[in-house]
Amino acid sequence: MSKQPLVGILMGSDNDYEVMAETGKALKELGIAFEMKVSSAHRTPERTAAYVRAARGNGIKVLIAGAGAAAHLAGVVAAETTLPVIAVPIDATSLRGLDALLAMVQMPAGIPVATMAIGKAGARNAGIFAAQILSVENAGVAKALQEQRFKMAAGVEAKSDALQEKLKKDGFAE
Amino acid sequence: MSKQPLVGILMGSDNDYEVMAETGKALKELGIAFEMKVSSAHRTPERTAAYVRAARGNGIKVLIAGAGAAAHLAGVVAAETTLPVIAVPIDATSLRGLDALLAMVQMPAGIPVATMAIGKAGARNAGIFAAQILSVENAGVAKALQEQRFKMAAGVEAKSDALQEKLKKDGFAE
Amino acid sequence: MSKQPLVGILMGSDNDYEVMAETGKALKELGIAFEMKVSSAHRTPERTAAYVRAARGNGIKVLIAGAGAAAHLAGVVAAETTLPVIAVPIDATSLRGLDALLAMVQMPAGIPVATMAIGKAGARNAGIFAAQILSVENAGVAKALQEQRFKMAAGVEAKSDALQEKLKKDGFAE
Amino acid sequence: MSKQPLVGILMGSDNDYEVMAETGKALKELGIAFEMKVSSAHRTPERTAAYVRAARGNGIKVLIAGAGAAAHLAGVVAAETTLPVIAVPIDATSLRGLDALLAMVQMPAGIPVATMAIGKAGARNAGIFAAQILSVENAGVAKALQEQRFKMAAGVEAKSDALQEKLKKDGFAE
Amino acid sequence: MSKQPLVGILMGSDNDYEVMAETGKALKELGIAFEMKVSSAHRTPERTAAYVRAARGNGIKVLIAGAGAAAHLAGVVAAETTLPVIAVPIDATSLRGLDALLAMVQMPAGIPVATMAIGKAGARNAGIFAAQILSVENAGVAKALQEQRFKMAAGVEAKSDALQEKLKKDGFAE
Amino acid sequence: MSKQPLVGILMGSDNDYEVMAETGKALKELGIAFEMKVSSAHRTPERTAAYVRAARGNGIKVLIAGAGAAAHLAGVVAAETTLPVIAVPIDATSLRGLDALLAMVQMPAGIPVATMAIGKAGARNAGIFAAQILSVENAGVAKALQEQRFKMAAGVEAKSDALQEKLKKDGFAE
Amino acid sequence: MSKQPLVGILMGSDNDYEVMAETGKALKELGIAFEMKVSSAHRTPERTAAYVRAARGNGIKVLIAGAGAAAHLAGVVAAETTLPVIAVPIDATSLRGLDALLAMVQMPAGIPVATMAIGKAGARNAGIFAAQILSVENAGVAKALQEQRFKMAAGVEAKSDALQEKLKKDGFAE
Amino acid sequence: MSKQPLVGILMGSDNDYEVMAETGKALKELGIAFEMKVSSAHRTPERTAAYVRAARGNGIKVLIAGAGAAAHLAGVVAAETTLPVIAVPIDATSLRGLDALLAMVQMPAGIPVATMAIGKAGARNAGIFAAQILSVENAGVAKALQEQRFKMAAGVEAKSDALQEKLKKDGFAE
Repeated sequence: MSKQPLVGILMGSDNDYEVMAETGKALKELGIAFEMKVSSAHRTPERTAAYVRAARGNGIKVLIAGAGAAAHLAGVVAAETTLPVIAVPIDATSLRGLDALLAMVQMPAGIPVATMAIGKAGARNAGIFAAQILSVENAGVAKALQEQRFKMAAGVEAKSDALQEKLKKDGFAE
Repeated sequence: MSKQPLVGILMGSDNDYEVMAETGKALKELGIAFEMKVSSAHRTPERTAAYVRAARGNGIKVLIAGAGAAAHLAGVVAAETTLPVIAVPIDATSLRGLDALLAMVQMPAGIPVATMAIGKAGARNAGIFAAQILSVENAGVAKALQEQRFKMAAGVEAKSDALQEKLKKDGFAE
Repeated sequence: MSKQPLVGILMGSDNDYEVMAETGKALKELGIAFEMKVSSAHRTPERTAAYVRAARGNGIKVLIAGAGAAAHLAGVVAAETTLPVIAVPIDATSLRGLDALLAMVQMPAGIPVATMAIGKAGARNAGIFAAQILSVENAGVAKALQEQRFKMAAGVEAKSDALQEKLKKDGFAE
Repeated sequence: MSKQPLVGILMGSDNDYEVMAETGKALKELGIAFEMKVSSAHRTPERTAAYVRAARGNGIKVLIAGAGAAAHLAGVVAAETTLPVIAVPIDATSLRGLDALLAMVQMPAGIPVATMAIGKAGARNAGIFAAQILSVENAGVAKALQEQRFKMAAGVEAKSDALQEKLKKDGFAE
Repeated sequence: MSKQPLVGILMGSDNDYEVMAETGKALKELGIAFEMKVSSAHRTPERTAAYVRAARGNGIKVLIAGAGAAAHLAGVVAAETTLPVIAVPIDATSLRGLDALLAMVQMPAGIPVATMAIGKAGARNAGIFAAQILSVENAGVAKALQEQRFKMAAGVEAKSDALQEKLKKDGFAE
Repeated sequence: MSKQPLVGILMGSDNDYEVMAETGKALKELGIAFEMKVSSAHRTPERTAAYVRAARGNGIKVLIAGAGAAAHLAGVVAAETTLPVIAVPIDATSLRGLDALLAMVQMPAGIPVATMAIGKAGARNAGIFAAQILSVENAGVAKALQEQRFKMAAGVEAKSDALQEKLKKDGFAE
Repeated sequence: MSKQPLVGILMGSDNDYEVMAETGKALKELGIAFEMKVSSAHRTPERTAAYVRAARGNGIKVLIAGAGAAAHLAGVVAAETTLPVIAVPIDATSLRGLDALLAMVQMPAGIPVATMAIGKAGARNAGIFAAQILSVENAGVAKALQEQRFKMAAGVEAKSDALQEKLKKDGFAE
Repeated sequence: MSKQPLVGILMGSDNDYEVMAETGKALKELGIAFEMKVSSAHRTPERTAAYVRAARGNGIKVLIAGAGAAAHLAGVVAAETTLPVIAVPIDATSLRGLDALLAMVQMPAGIPVATMAIGKAGARNAGIFAAQILSVENAGVAKALQEQRFKMAAGVEAKSDALQEKLKKDGFAE
């Protein structure tokens, strides 16, 4: 794994770590170094802006922001950089993440944010998507991604085989 | 009308002016001076922050932010001041303002934003609500608001009277 | 803390107290006296109207209404006063507070209600927003709010530091 | 048709008349006298309450309230009477009547409101439903309703016959 | 309590009884006899139609239908009678009753259904609303309803008094 | 084309014909005879039931129901037959067909309804799906469907070629 | 039960088995042989396409696809065959299956997918609907379906009888 | 501008071109060559897969998919490549793009798709985001993006200045 973090992950609250740890796992699996910080769009706007403005200079190539509720973090991050910014909407209110999703994905023209699915699936995909961005110019990452795909496909087939046993037990097959 | 603007109105795009002019009309009716600027959370984050940080010192007492889509402007404004911030969600996408509403109203604990209805009704109410805030310590504004209420009530009664004529014409009454 | 209540809090049912206690905590932290009552828009309309009509005369400067379902309380309160009225939608039905949110925020032109987020975040923010209204003409409250902001920002940084330990434990950092 | 109005119709704004005229037409067809007024839950709360409190004494047997946006009118009416109250949600905002529907139908336990469909279909049905209530103890109204049903059924059959001609013209039948 | 059932309650599945028992409680409190049956719009369409067609002749004056999912029961009932039909949408799927609500409330012009809130609140209100319909021509029921209102109002005041103790315990009042 | 209708199409109102004509066109293209009638779940329940009960005996093999609003027609049809029933939700209210979709697709266990997309796309697909059902035991229909697929694929390629000209005109390609 | 599987069931993940087992139970009750496999639209696109392309040749007459989230499986299956494809949306994310429902039911014109209800009710109905398709040309399956209907109707009546005992116990009847 | 296309844009139908032309304009402004084709997930699955599988080898570095309704195109593309895939949901049905949004953004773990806003804003941002991906290793593109930002910020200021004239004309300022 590279030593220099290539991906910077921000989350609006440490409550978001349970979800955003999935991003960390995905990046680690693919051998990509990252750093992760709590920084809020609303409670620490200057800290957030300072981190983001320095990111390209510090060797960060992709930024990931996870937040719930009126999730402004990804948009606020994107406003301060031209690096690609990935957004992970988090289910943190009674509206089950629909609020965070719309607050992230509906960015106005000019300042894009790449939104993933709500919650852990989205957090994992944010890590993989960051790797896909890096893979554009990095054959090693491209190869790691391709191998991950093969493993996923093999996993599906193995689960389908295992299902046949369950079908017999449940009386659906002989 | 006071000369010194007491209310600062920001909108994310000049397309929002058609809606936000309702805020202006409401404030003008109540004799409250205001200023209005285009400033984007995403395209001009520093300009927005600079304006807001200086607002209390410049005599501004209430801030109003109108925006559509992933409407971060009110939250970004609220992050930079302890003055009351009123949000007007604008119907600017195919989701008809539901995106802007959720992106404004679902603010996380600590940084409130006072959200009004989507569109012109909300824009008008933002102006009236700003006046209500000022009325807490300003009997003149309180009196203007009370008079506006009397007029509104009289208007409803007048419309009900006019309706009786329509009912006759439509054969519903004699 | 002032002795004279400056903020009047109404809730439609005593079931709402668990949520509305957050408003109380926020006001107490900021040294602002308040009173809190159960009063329903539908079951005790006269009691509600009587309380609200007397509020300005009794020294109340801001009203807060928390309610769930078809949450009419804030609108009914706003109809009887020109004081600023803050609404807290409560998640009390299978629609998870979306019904209360729309029933509060979509007020027609003329009678504004300042809507906060659904549930506890919104209840806390209602207290803070009431303080922000008072801060317009009260430097003490403004200072208390500013200090709260500093504390919140420091809290975010402390949590980010604490997160670094977790990252090491989870094998994401060294 | 009876001379004494048996049904009282309130609407929050004269803009609602285009929709609520459908209620009038339905009642007229069924020979039921009614009166119709503009009265707002928010702009004229006392006028509304006064009208409703006097309704049973004035011979009114059913109340109908049409309103859009945060449609509190039906709930506010129901809070002041034990007469049956029918609600017609009106599509008056960018949320297409979903706001009015939820603000009407989600009434808390104790104060019912009988909600119809959004818009003109609901307005017509409010008139028919008022007649159905009266039909419980009025055989003449019951008979008029039954005849209306026969006519509707015959109308469907006639339209189905007419459709066969269209099908031939469009080459779908010979 | 009358012996002859005046209200007929149908539910699509016996799973709905937990909710619809609230209708029974409300009617019993108000002294109104009722009968309650399981009958499905889809699984027993003829049974449902037969019951409803006979209802007026059998002395039933109001019908109530509770159902979840694609809740057609109330509409199917209303298609077979001119008696007033009240609908209770039940939260029986992952869509939390929104499906049942829309399937009930959006009835096309001509065949009204009076829709209550989703779940237990709506079930209780269905019972009260049936009583309100009966109260139009029955002073005894009107009186019982009025007394229920007084009790509800007194209950709110008692709860508000009890809340003052809680406020003291929680340090919000002295 | 077969002379004996194999598909029976019902629509709740003749207003639905504009949409349901797409079903007719799709069936005609595939050489499948059909009949089409207006019959309402609510206004003509007996007519609808009588038609459906006789369908299998009359040689009908698939039923299609198009309806808007609280669209009960498909469920009511499915309750009277074990033939496959296809539902087309129609955008006929301010809720844009979401009401019809949920009222059709959320059928409870036991009585299935095969729901297509809202509007014309769904109406066309209802015709194709009816053909797919017939194709299970009819090689001629299977072949017609396969040819339609080839044509569709060729159409996409032709449109992509045509797009290249547009790209040149718009300065996006040379 | 036939030995040769007539129905092919695919699910996107083995997590979906708990829901899709309902399809298996329904088919088994009706004596229809089936096979069931895990195969993902995204993780094993070629495996999915290969299975589907071979299906008609292998004697499969109906395909059923169950999936959650952005549920593309049914559409991807339908793109590779002209056999009827039934879709079961699964509640697998915080959006409670609404995402899967819309991703399945809103298929564009040309490639139909027959969508059932979200979750277990839909899974059971998928099995019954597959049988209904087979019943078009198979009198044995038609008879089995008709018997299932009789049993369902009898079950409703039995439950209604059992309810009468409950009503007595709860004091609602004598 | 580079001659070799670096970005491949697919759309499900040529009706989507009006929206996707915004992607083309954004890429052209930033000097990035692209190609654009019509290719459907459902009508031409093999054509789509073939194009995508060859993309990395053909020098394509980012793929963009625009589609409406049950928008499977982006997911189907992502299933065949490890290159970054950007999704543009298009408002093509009565559900106003909410269907396309959920069908794109809610991708399950393993196969990410970077979703932009619904419609033209999202299409423009897809082009900018593709450039941001390329900018990670291409200083020229990074510079072009930075200049675009300066222009956007200047544009906002210019519009704010122009607004001051409007305010004077509308009587809001002197």
